[in-house]
Amino acid sequence: MELLTTNNVWMMICTALVFFMHLGFAFLEIGLTRQKNTINILFKNIFIITTGLLLYCLVGFNLMYPGEFNGFLGFAGFGLDAPLADGTLDLAYNEGYTYWTDFLFQGMFAATAATIVSGAVAERMKIGSFMIFTIIYVGLIYPIAGSWKWGGGFLDKLGFYDFAGSTLVHSVGGWAAIVAVWLLGSRIGKFRDGKPQAITGHNIPLATAGVIILWLGWFGFNGGSVLSADPGLTSLTLVTTCLSAAAGGVVSLLVSSVLYKNLDLTMFLNGILGGLVGITAGADQMSPTDAILIGSVAGAFIVFAVSFIDRLKLDDPVGAIAVHLVCGIWGTLAVGIFGALAGWNQFLSQLAGVASYAVICIISTFIILFILKKTIGIRVSEREELEGLDSHEHGMNAYPDFRLNEH
Amino acid sequence: MELLTTNNVWMMICTALVFFMHLGFAFLEIGLTRQKNTINILFKNIFIITTGLLLYCLVGFNLMYPGEFNGFLGFAGFGLDAPLADGTLDLAYNEGYTYWTDFLFQGMFAATAATIVSGAVAERMKIGSFMIFTIIYVGLIYPIAGSWKWGGGFLDKLGFYDFAGSTLVHSVGGWAAIVAVWLLGSRIGKFRDGKPQAITGHNIPLATAGVIILWLGWFGFNGGSVLSADPGLTSLTLVTTCLSAAAGGVVSLLVSSVLYKNLDLTMFLNGILGGLVGITAGADQMSPTDAILIGSVAGAFIVFAVSFIDRLKLDDPVGAIAVHLVCGIWGTLAVGIFGALAGWNQFLSQLAGVASYAVICIISTFIILFILKKTIGIRVSEREELEGLDSHEHGMNAYPDFRLNEH
Amino acid sequence: MELLTTNNVWMMICTALVFFMHLGFAFLEIGLTRQKNTINILFKNIFIITTGLLLYCLVGFNLMYPGEFNGFLGFAGFGLDAPLADGTLDLAYNEGYTYWTDFLFQGMFAATAATIVSGAVAERMKIGSFMIFTIIYVGLIYPIAGSWKWGGGFLDKLGFYDFAGSTLVHSVGGWAAIVAVWLLGSRIGKFRDGKPQAITGHNIPLATAGVIILWLGWFGFNGGSVLSADPGLTSLTLVTTCLSAAAGGVVSLLVSSVLYKNLDLTMFLNGILGGLVGITAGADQMSPTDAILIGSVAGAFIVFAVSFIDRLKLDDPVGAIAVHLVCGIWGTLAVGIFGALAGWNQFLSQLAGVASYAVICIISTFIILFILKKTIGIRVSEREELEGLDSHEHGMNAYPDFRLNEH
Repeated sequence: MELLTTNNVWMMICTALVFFMHLGFAFLEIGLTRQKNTINILFKNIFIITTGLLLYCLVGFNLMYPGEFNGFLGFAGFGLDAPLADGTLDLAYNEGYTYWTDFLFQGMFAATAATIVSGAVAERMKIGSFMIFTIIYVGLIYPIAGSWKWGGGFLDKLGFYDFAGSTLVHSVGGWAAIVAVWLLGSRIGKFRDGKPQAITGHNIPLATAGVIILWLGWFGFNGGSVLSADPGLTSLTLVTTCLSAAAGGVVSLLVSSVLYKNLDLTMFLNGILGGLVGITAGADQMSPTDAILIGSVAGAFIVFAVSFIDRLKLDDPVGAIAVHLVCGIWGTLAVGIFGALAGWNQFLSQLAGVASYAVICIISTFIILFILKKTIGIRVSEREELEGLDSHEHGMNAYPDFRLNEH
Repeated sequence: MELLTTNNVWMMICTALVFFMHLGFAFLEIGLTRQKNTINILFKNIFIITTGLLLYCLVGFNLMYPGEFNGFLGFAGFGLDAPLADGTLDLAYNEGYTYWTDFLFQGMFAATAATIVSGAVAERMKIGSFMIFTIIYVGLIYPIAGSWKWGGGFLDKLGFYDFAGSTLVHSVGGWAAIVAVWLLGSRIGKFRDGKPQAITGHNIPLATAGVIILWLGWFGFNGGSVLSADPGLTSLTLVTTCLSAAAGGVVSLLVSSVLYKNLDLTMFLNGILGGLVGITAGADQMSPTDAILIGSVAGAFIVFAVSFIDRLKLDDPVGAIAVHLVCGIWGTLAVGIFGALAGWNQFLSQLAGVASYAVICIISTFIILFILKKTIGIRVSEREELEGLDSHEHGMNAYPDFRLNEH
Repeated sequence: MELLTTNNVWMMICTALVFFMHLGFAFLEIGLTRQKNTINILFKNIFIITTGLLLYCLVGFNLMYPGEFNGFLGFAGFGLDAPLADGTLDLAYNEGYTYWTDFLFQGMFAATAATIVSGAVAERMKIGSFMIFTIIYVGLIYPIAGSWKWGGGFLDKLGFYDFAGSTLVHSVGGWAAIVAVWLLGSRIGKFRDGKPQAITGHNIPLATAGVIILWLGWFGFNGGSVLSADPGLTSLTLVTTCLSAAAGGVVSLLVSSVLYKNLDLTMFLNGILGGLVGITAGADQMSPTDAILIGSVAGAFIVFAVSFIDRLKLDDPVGAIAVHLVCGIWGTLAVGIFGALAGWNQFLSQLAGVASYAVICIISTFIILFILKKTIGIRVSEREELEGLDSHEHGMNAYPDFRLNEH
């Protein structure tokens, strides 16, 4: 009972920290995009967290954890269980946390996938289409895909390992992001004569704050994925998480300053995020040295991936594909290369996992967005894009009463 | 001992989260008001949290928890107890937390009531009068009123239930807000030819961040009100809190978009806050479905209340009355309608509670502010209001060195 | 085992809170400085936290906690221990927390010292020199100096007491700050005809948020310094910490409003920080009344120290010297004056501690910066300073796409 209480306290705190990541995402996305689309991005983030929780309550939780099932698709029924008749709850549920904590922790994860997409499609996607996409992707695709591993499905039986979601969360968001960006096309002015143009954001302090908040949230994202307060595992996980983040940032800075002769804060920040995504699949399996190596590689990948994605003429305003997809794949494969599970068999299992999620995410995103494109459309009008989504979709702007002082 | 330690850890974390709500309130209030009054609002928030804690230490804690008393007014003496002579503390105090944790958790609550008023009177109230009002209201009225229920007073004996303060905190702030707004009058330009005019805020990203931070803080506000780390109760409470918040936001968005043909971010945010305030009185008594219903009703109430308060010619710049008073009353009554305590007797007890707090808060606020109005005045001069409180009351402005780039 | 788990949970949460302080520092520093140097400050803060963690992993941790050593300098070897062969960790390490938690909590502290310097040298120091200084100061000086007390070195044997680092962290940063400010010289325009000129910041809302976040972080900074979740000690520590912060703010406000006839938000905020730094050396040894007295004195000191430092023609843009050095010394000496340890012997031990840290920090900072000054230089060119470090050192600015609305 004492141990259940302690475990549950830890899991609740981690839940709160993962919730707080939504502020991190919101700040990062608005900071790196133009002022005229700020309300739209904030709206999407608030929509994702509220709708995401309700959908996860209605169907997601029981799709993702259906109990005994065929390994591909199962459903344990609508809604959550009620408290027992005497007002208490079934505390025999789990020794690591209660049923309610389980739901809430997993529910906070669910919304993350859609948030990743939100950043990538920023500044040009129709809000109505985004809302419909989010409902389907968070409500159905994410939990079904999640059941394959965390729900005990076929990838779990295959030996695929994904501790906290380099693949199940970050790549699931990243695959959707790349498909969406491709279907949407680039923002007006992003490519001129085939060359990518810098479209600068409007608030780098908030973007920086977003990254620090996300890093903080990762204490809960990875720390809570231990699913108990086991002192050794939780604290090792926090150490590997932080060291990978630090290494990712520093290597990203080094590589980008060598290549571009510039101390680029944005690349520094994306390197940190890359390190965080990279360690997520195996944070409980790595030594500190492994963590630094994994983060360093992720940090280097970020620099090259950002420029490679540009060269593919994919317009990803916040670097979501480089951070969440590229480093998500890297982190998943790294479990077969570094740490306690390293080995050829594990590496192949990891590859199988990456491929399976690529298939379900690419296909489902394509189908949803293709139907939306052919019906209500997914892209705003040219005028709306030029004048900003805030005034057209929301009838307000982000800093309506902002004034300058006389200098 | 193990259990005390765990319980106490949870309570300390919840204390920290409730403390953090003050940043949420500050961001929300400055975001929804004009730039020229930003310093003034920040100043008030910092004043409330510092002064509030000192007053609660001096008199509040012992007014609110006087031990045995007549049920209406008791006082256990000035100041806090010192540690025992051997440097340790009386750990037999409570099995859920220590004496110090008790003080600090309750102290963090105390300041909240005044913060609610701060938002409602923004942009036109004299800072000196606000400071005097805060000292009396936080130092005396809040703890005396609180003793009626949480201190074991007459409402507690009557069976009135208020888990975490829909009435004891939010309505106590809300009643003061409505009286203050009425005595102060509306801001210049708010009503033209009897019609309410939109006075836009200056920083919607910070307002949005404020709501996310407040939601995060509510994990502690409600979660800590269990007064232990009981795994079932704390985690159920977090689930009902989050589901009600999500439902409040979504319903508010739906209703306002039907009525006003607009995806209004501000209404979305206020709906979330309404859901949070609404669930607070019975967060430990509700099933997930109850929580969603309570939040949904709160979210709908918000939309209508905001427009109704406008029609009453009450000028509440941040929607504090709709959020904290209307949804506070709703949440308190909902304990008699939904969940484990539902029933006519309970509903009548809840009504009695609502009425009792209405009486003490309206009367005391009116007396304090009326005296201030007749002596030093409560409203700034027209010139000061037009030019902004920041330069007149504080001699500085919020973004003194802000400059624009050449585009 | 239950108790270890609970203790470890508390320590991990405190670690997360101390990490979050880096956002507080970043917001405070950018808020109080000019817009044209914002990216530079954010960059420095991100550099400090990432590099600081890696250096602490590589050498710092084992310099600061070398085990048995001569009391002045010891080193237990490079890097961290790996997990045991069976994948678990040595849980017999400590009953309060694991080896990993120990490293990470201490690692989060290490970076703080350099952050203090960052604020003081803002707006004119070359980024390359700052990076080199940070690497040496965080990587070598901070942990060596720390070993003298927390590593069990000669000051520990002497009876010197510094609970959470008024001296070991804050003065260590503060001494470096004062030397650096003196070597750098003041910003262009700070002194005209020998009189200090106000150089206003650019974002007071973020500066205010920074202080609230720092206060929140201090729950972990002081609360975690108990090194267990002992219910009495941790909760007493939080109470003394919060009361001292509140008293520091209120007294600072009172003194500055009497002296300058102004309700100065910045002074209010610095008073809170002074109260926090002041209580840090003895937060676990004080009664609530002691804490209020210590904070009050710190708050008064802040007002006089800021003006005194101005008169010395030292240009400290964010008040770091007043907050961290002056109140750090005060808090350290206060352990000999107030609380459970008060007495002449203790006071003399505290003096010895203050003096020892003054010596190592002043000398080492002077040597490092003097060498840098004579080689690559420590100050940017006049043109760079006037145009801002952001465009010259980083090729970007903080709000590139910020636009105003038509009013």
